[in-house]
Amino acid sequence: MPLTLKSDPKFSDDVAPALPGERYRTVRAQSVALCAPLATEDYVVQAMADVSPPKWHLAHATWFFENFVLIPFLKDYRAFHPEFSHLFNSYYETVGRFFPRHQRGVLARPTVEAVYAYRDHVDAAMLDLLASAAEAVRPELASRTLLGLHHEQQHQELLLTDIKYNFAINPLRPVYRPTPEEPRQPAPPSTWLEQSGGLHEIGHDGSDFAFDNETPRHPVWLGNHRLAARPVCNGEFIEFIESGGYGRPELWLADGWGRVRQNGWQAPLYWERIDETWWHFTLAGLRRLDPAEPVCHVSHYEADAFARWRGARLPTEMEWECLAAGRTPTGNLLESERYHPAPAPPAPPGEPVSLFGDTWEWTQSSYAPYPGFQPLPGSLGEYNGKFMYGQVVLRGGSCATPASHIRATYRNFFRPWDRWQFSGIRLAEDVR
Amino acid sequence: MPLTLKSDPKFSDDVAPALPGERYRTVRAQSVALCAPLATEDYVVQAMADVSPPKWHLAHATWFFENFVLIPFLKDYRAFHPEFSHLFNSYYETVGRFFPRHQRGVLARPTVEAVYAYRDHVDAAMLDLLASAAEAVRPELASRTLLGLHHEQQHQELLLTDIKYNFAINPLRPVYRPTPEEPRQPAPPSTWLEQSGGLHEIGHDGSDFAFDNETPRHPVWLGNHRLAARPVCNGEFIEFIESGGYGRPELWLADGWGRVRQNGWQAPLYWERIDETWWHFTLAGLRRLDPAEPVCHVSHYEADAFARWRGARLPTEMEWECLAAGRTPTGNLLESERYHPAPAPPAPPGEPVSLFGDTWEWTQSSYAPYPGFQPLPGSLGEYNGKFMYGQVVLRGGSCATPASHIRATYRNFFRPWDRWQFSGIRLAEDVR
Amino acid sequence: MPLTLKSDPKFSDDVAPALPGERYRTVRAQSVALCAPLATEDYVVQAMADVSPPKWHLAHATWFFENFVLIPFLKDYRAFHPEFSHLFNSYYETVGRFFPRHQRGVLARPTVEAVYAYRDHVDAAMLDLLASAAEAVRPELASRTLLGLHHEQQHQELLLTDIKYNFAINPLRPVYRPTPEEPRQPAPPSTWLEQSGGLHEIGHDGSDFAFDNETPRHPVWLGNHRLAARPVCNGEFIEFIESGGYGRPELWLADGWGRVRQNGWQAPLYWERIDETWWHFTLAGLRRLDPAEPVCHVSHYEADAFARWRGARLPTEMEWECLAAGRTPTGNLLESERYHPAPAPPAPPGEPVSLFGDTWEWTQSSYAPYPGFQPLPGSLGEYNGKFMYGQVVLRGGSCATPASHIRATYRNFFRPWDRWQFSGIRLAEDVR
Amino acid sequence: MPLTLKSDPKFSDDVAPALPGERYRTVRAQSVALCAPLATEDYVVQAMADVSPPKWHLAHATWFFENFVLIPFLKDYRAFHPEFSHLFNSYYETVGRFFPRHQRGVLARPTVEAVYAYRDHVDAAMLDLLASAAEAVRPELASRTLLGLHHEQQHQELLLTDIKYNFAINPLRPVYRPTPEEPRQPAPPSTWLEQSGGLHEIGHDGSDFAFDNETPRHPVWLGNHRLAARPVCNGEFIEFIESGGYGRPELWLADGWGRVRQNGWQAPLYWERIDETWWHFTLAGLRRLDPAEPVCHVSHYEADAFARWRGARLPTEMEWECLAAGRTPTGNLLESERYHPAPAPPAPPGEPVSLFGDTWEWTQSSYAPYPGFQPLPGSLGEYNGKFMYGQVVLRGGSCATPASHIRATYRNFFRPWDRWQFSGIRLAEDVR
Repeated sequence: MPLTLKSDPKFSDDVAPALPGERYRTVRAQSVALCAPLATEDYVVQAMADVSPPKWHLAHATWFFENFVLIPFLKDYRAFHPEFSHLFNSYYETVGRFFPRHQRGVLARPTVEAVYAYRDHVDAAMLDLLASAAEAVRPELASRTLLGLHHEQQHQELLLTDIKYNFAINPLRPVYRPTPEEPRQPAPPSTWLEQSGGLHEIGHDGSDFAFDNETPRHPVWLGNHRLAARPVCNGEFIEFIESGGYGRPELWLADGWGRVRQNGWQAPLYWERIDETWWHFTLAGLRRLDPAEPVCHVSHYEADAFARWRGARLPTEMEWECLAAGRTPTGNLLESERYHPAPAPPAPPGEPVSLFGDTWEWTQSSYAPYPGFQPLPGSLGEYNGKFMYGQVVLRGGSCATPASHIRATYRNFFRPWDRWQFSGIRLAEDVR
Repeated sequence: MPLTLKSDPKFSDDVAPALPGERYRTVRAQSVALCAPLATEDYVVQAMADVSPPKWHLAHATWFFENFVLIPFLKDYRAFHPEFSHLFNSYYETVGRFFPRHQRGVLARPTVEAVYAYRDHVDAAMLDLLASAAEAVRPELASRTLLGLHHEQQHQELLLTDIKYNFAINPLRPVYRPTPEEPRQPAPPSTWLEQSGGLHEIGHDGSDFAFDNETPRHPVWLGNHRLAARPVCNGEFIEFIESGGYGRPELWLADGWGRVRQNGWQAPLYWERIDETWWHFTLAGLRRLDPAEPVCHVSHYEADAFARWRGARLPTEMEWECLAAGRTPTGNLLESERYHPAPAPPAPPGEPVSLFGDTWEWTQSSYAPYPGFQPLPGSLGEYNGKFMYGQVVLRGGSCATPASHIRATYRNFFRPWDRWQFSGIRLAEDVR
Repeated sequence: MPLTLKSDPKFSDDVAPALPGERYRTVRAQSVALCAPLATEDYVVQAMADVSPPKWHLAHATWFFENFVLIPFLKDYRAFHPEFSHLFNSYYETVGRFFPRHQRGVLARPTVEAVYAYRDHVDAAMLDLLASAAEAVRPELASRTLLGLHHEQQHQELLLTDIKYNFAINPLRPVYRPTPEEPRQPAPPSTWLEQSGGLHEIGHDGSDFAFDNETPRHPVWLGNHRLAARPVCNGEFIEFIESGGYGRPELWLADGWGRVRQNGWQAPLYWERIDETWWHFTLAGLRRLDPAEPVCHVSHYEADAFARWRGARLPTEMEWECLAAGRTPTGNLLESERYHPAPAPPAPPGEPVSLFGDTWEWTQSSYAPYPGFQPLPGSLGEYNGKFMYGQVVLRGGSCATPASHIRATYRNFFRPWDRWQFSGIRLAEDVR
Repeated sequence: MPLTLKSDPKFSDDVAPALPGERYRTVRAQSVALCAPLATEDYVVQAMADVSPPKWHLAHATWFFENFVLIPFLKDYRAFHPEFSHLFNSYYETVGRFFPRHQRGVLARPTVEAVYAYRDHVDAAMLDLLASAAEAVRPELASRTLLGLHHEQQHQELLLTDIKYNFAINPLRPVYRPTPEEPRQPAPPSTWLEQSGGLHEIGHDGSDFAFDNETPRHPVWLGNHRLAARPVCNGEFIEFIESGGYGRPELWLADGWGRVRQNGWQAPLYWERIDETWWHFTLAGLRRLDPAEPVCHVSHYEADAFARWRGARLPTEMEWECLAAGRTPTGNLLESERYHPAPAPPAPPGEPVSLFGDTWEWTQSSYAPYPGFQPLPGSLGEYNGKFMYGQVVLRGGSCATPASHIRATYRNFFRPWDRWQFSGIRLAEDVR
């Protein structure tokens, strides 16, 4: 059962023969580096069902290589521990049982030390395999390894968002990484970028890596529309709050309004009002809110209500991708080591700013298969396809996304009520 | 605040001046006729949160006219009862408070007799108004009255589905309306109808009534594809069950698989296995399953899993509408008084059968606004727009849908786990 | 397996031979009379899990006779309907399945008319059996019939408390039975009645009817103590509220404090504050609170907190029974047809007032078996014994208790958080 | 507000002047010793709401001294950390806020190292205070310190039971402390010990330490009865299982039967059936069950159902105390370092065995105040009194109870469904 990540025949010629040993080392080391500031105890906890303990992320990303690369490809490979497949399988029903997701934080063992030993064990085997694989399996091996590395990069982002959540609920307010406060500037005015309607193409078609859910490339018909040159900033969101936005049901989707009332939402996640001033919890600790920063940690419901309040709407993922197409994904990404959105610079005429990095941008599009979508064969088909209901697409990456992981066609997806990701808002409107 | 249901100027000329007094009488009488078989006690109960007591439907549809037509348009109108706005408002946040939906079944009062008196009171005022309204308000009055009548027809369908649910959970198994069993024929083989891809148009543009969510008409790009000439039948669904379909996670969306396990689903709603034979509860009581009938009372998840098991997929709502465009909505609809899906006849070459009526057909499309969608102004904007997350579109009407209520552009929507509607399956696949 | 309700041999001589045909007629007619003010719809609903629809009470009390008397004793008895045993068994595990308690309100059928037909069917058979039973079975038959009649009387009280709850939550505020308001008097001061400690006897030993849980009579050692001559009145409870009693955790049992916060309790059930005045919902509708009436519809937790606030405590059930021993159970009971507590009259020196009737009085005693307790044999053993954990004993009967049903040894029991019974407070304290 | 733990004037003369510095050292060291086998990660987790993370126990027992001794008595005492009062207050409403109990396991910080530093800080201050306190405060200081040490000993037992639970749910099955398996003997037959009824006295009256809930000593009247000489053993409980005990509702209290069905109980907690053999998880890992050991980790409901199945009943706490009165509390207690119940030796004629230690023994008594009970003044009154509803009394201590902590009058209490304590069964019956 050969796994082809892309139907394009150039793929195997181009990428696979150069087996990604060096990239493997680099990406794997990044995960470890992100955990450097943690105490042993920080690796263990899970402050809500949606986050995972850091040691679970470290082990699960390792299990992915063990299960999908080493066991099928490395002869005589000996699994590190017979129970780890059960403990660190996330959701692959066809692979076997998995430990309940919301209970990951009750597992004291394996210890952090044992998890690092597991990583070392798998890394040694992987590097061995990548160095010595037979010609015939190299394309498939390269594909799966690349997939595993992108998978690990997704968990790098989750490491940061989950650590942030775990720290935020702790009354001791631990600091992940102290950073100096920067001088503040007002946000530049926002302008609109017009895009002509008509037949466009979206989706991935290149020879480089993409997830199955970005394919196939296909035509879509769009109307004339505009997108905002920069994301919505905190100062604008404060206006929404102060105008009573969280108390006006006509601004909200019915489900969103239900969440507002049920959860008592009054502001984005991590915001706190102390003595008439807005503060928010960051990976550098509790900070006064900067009105010029992109608003972050809002749900899709809040993004949608804000847009309606402004007489605008959220972009569709097709509109977003047309704006991003052909642009290099640079910006405030993981490598900036800022781990927090930065104020948008003034936008050059006709150009968007902060399109990649800073915050993921909620679209109005439900996560659905592209026309002609084919999931990966076998268990890897569970990677993306089975979540294609009830999720909403986000685009563009955030301050926690590795630069080599993001691209214009990338489709992230979360539940519309999720707020613990670095998620923000870019407005759109129709042109009539 | 004039309400215009359609931007087309012909609308007001064409429809409004002829105020729909006769239609009002007919539609309102239909609701009462559907309740004729009920005992007083049957009007009161609510066997799960999603269904409503029949007397609530009768009163709520009446409240719609009182609140949106009589109060704004009939001078000196006296509301029937000051608490009814609270009790019979369904979900209009901007109109005022509403009694909790899942608690409708705890209200013994108003009595059924009082609800009918409420209907009489409102009917008299409505007919008076329709007969005597000033020229200037007639277009708006006609629009709102038509909307109210289509709203009432939606509740006629719900009356039947809710009565069915209330009866089904009762160990005494009441019969709504006895009907003779019919002789059985095997289902004809299913064939495919090919549709060419390219640029198509969907959505409503005519001068007759449509809901806001069907507009505006707009272009869409479709790939080449096929739709099944007839719906999936019970016999085919039994094959799915017998092949272990409810036990194979790889066939299911992740959320769907969660529901299967949590709810213990083993078959469609209302199916029972008694001594090796499949039976199902119908409005005519418990009946042996006819393998040739369209499968009914499946969730979107089950429809989706069945399609995957067959190597096919569900149609998009755009594909469905392209097939239906230009066809007259006839078939086994409410007026057949069958209240149950009928076996599909053999399909003429190149023609679909059972496209309208019998069962609503689950699409793969999330319920979302059409490009350029504008909800109705004011409180009526809550009618449709605020539900545009988390719902899945169904098309075509069912054996409980009034014929004058359905059309090719009609978009019904329910949660993907809902099973108590008359919901079934038509398969689709890509043509490569 | 002869059932002997009492070990006392006088029982069978005394009571049984005179088979209680006349009493049967009277008690059964009382249930029907209590339902006279109801509309058909009122018989159906169940506004919370703890209450039952009135028609369920009427049918269940009937099922008791059918199952425990007619089926074992009446040759050729034909059950009224094969499903009724399932539908109207309350909790007798050893008898068979029972329909889920919290779902009783979803059953539209059997209709009220059918329930009355069921009663007629069973009454005819019962009266036939009581008139014609063979000598040998008469003692057992008399015992079971008496038990069934006391059981029906318990459900008469529940009919009233459940109708009150169902009406209270309805925004239309139906009136069960209008009564004139009476002139108001201040409550007389409360005095203490001293009781000497030492060895006392409690429990039932007579030749007349008692439940198994009142036996055997046995010695208990009590310390010197005092009981209040009259129950706590509304005016006193308002002082507790106004002094912040619902906001002071140190006054409450831990579980009680949890309920206060979880449920937002601020006052007894049915109390409402309207424009600075306290009102409460009664079976005669919404009424201004009379400060002199005994406080009613308080939980055990509220009674306990009130007592602690007053520097007193609740009586034990032993202390209560010693005070009541030898007194005739008269007072504001069901037959007064007041269906509401009445202000206590001034207490004669050394005498308690309102000891029987008005409100049940919470004790501090957990419901537990008396030393040497033997439950009834067979399924009837499930009547009382299996509830002997987690319930608290109440004593004295209420304005909804039939006079022939109450006595000094009677042990009622409810969960400490229950408030929908007519439950009130009498204070006690130690004498040192 | 002087705190007097006992009204007996001998108390202050006798105990207080000798301030318990040495005992303080010993008891505090015991807690640390019990944690020696733990990895850092083991200190953090909370596998269900009822257990607490080990580091929480270590910190909370320390907070008790800080809050109730150091802050009121040590001039210029500086609290270790301003947030610790919030984090490590368990349930003292009158002291201030407390972190939600079921969320203790989401707190990565303070680290284990910080918790030990907190202990050192408080220990230094305590020993300083105990060495230098003024004469006038010594009695009160001694009382509170003693209370704090007994409090810490309660948490030593909880440390073991909570570690056991946390380890048991982990698929890696960690071992707390390996111990050799011992040779097995059949259990000796059980015999009955008769106790004459009449007036007895129970409760604490001595000059040594007791909790407030053991006072005052008071008379009780008991009937003639018998208690089993030894606890019920595993072999006997297996007979109950094999006779279908978990499937027979007539053996169970109604609430117990509800738990059986809801939780799917089929055996005591930690039991597993593997290939026709019973195993159970212990602090030494998974072990084959020894039929001669006392059955352990049963709920009150299971103990009660077992007793009913055997035609016996559970003892009252008064009966149990009369048997234990005057006996020295020796046996398989914490100091045995077995941490697991041991098979009972043959009982000498007329003597009970395994009365203290091994397993706590469920009584049939609800936890209630003794006649004349006065809780401690101030916040310490929350220690015991506010839990006096809904709990059931256990007696005798277990293999996890320190010897200096247990006595014949000691009243332990848990919810009747709790199974994670070392809880077992001793039978009783009436003598007629």
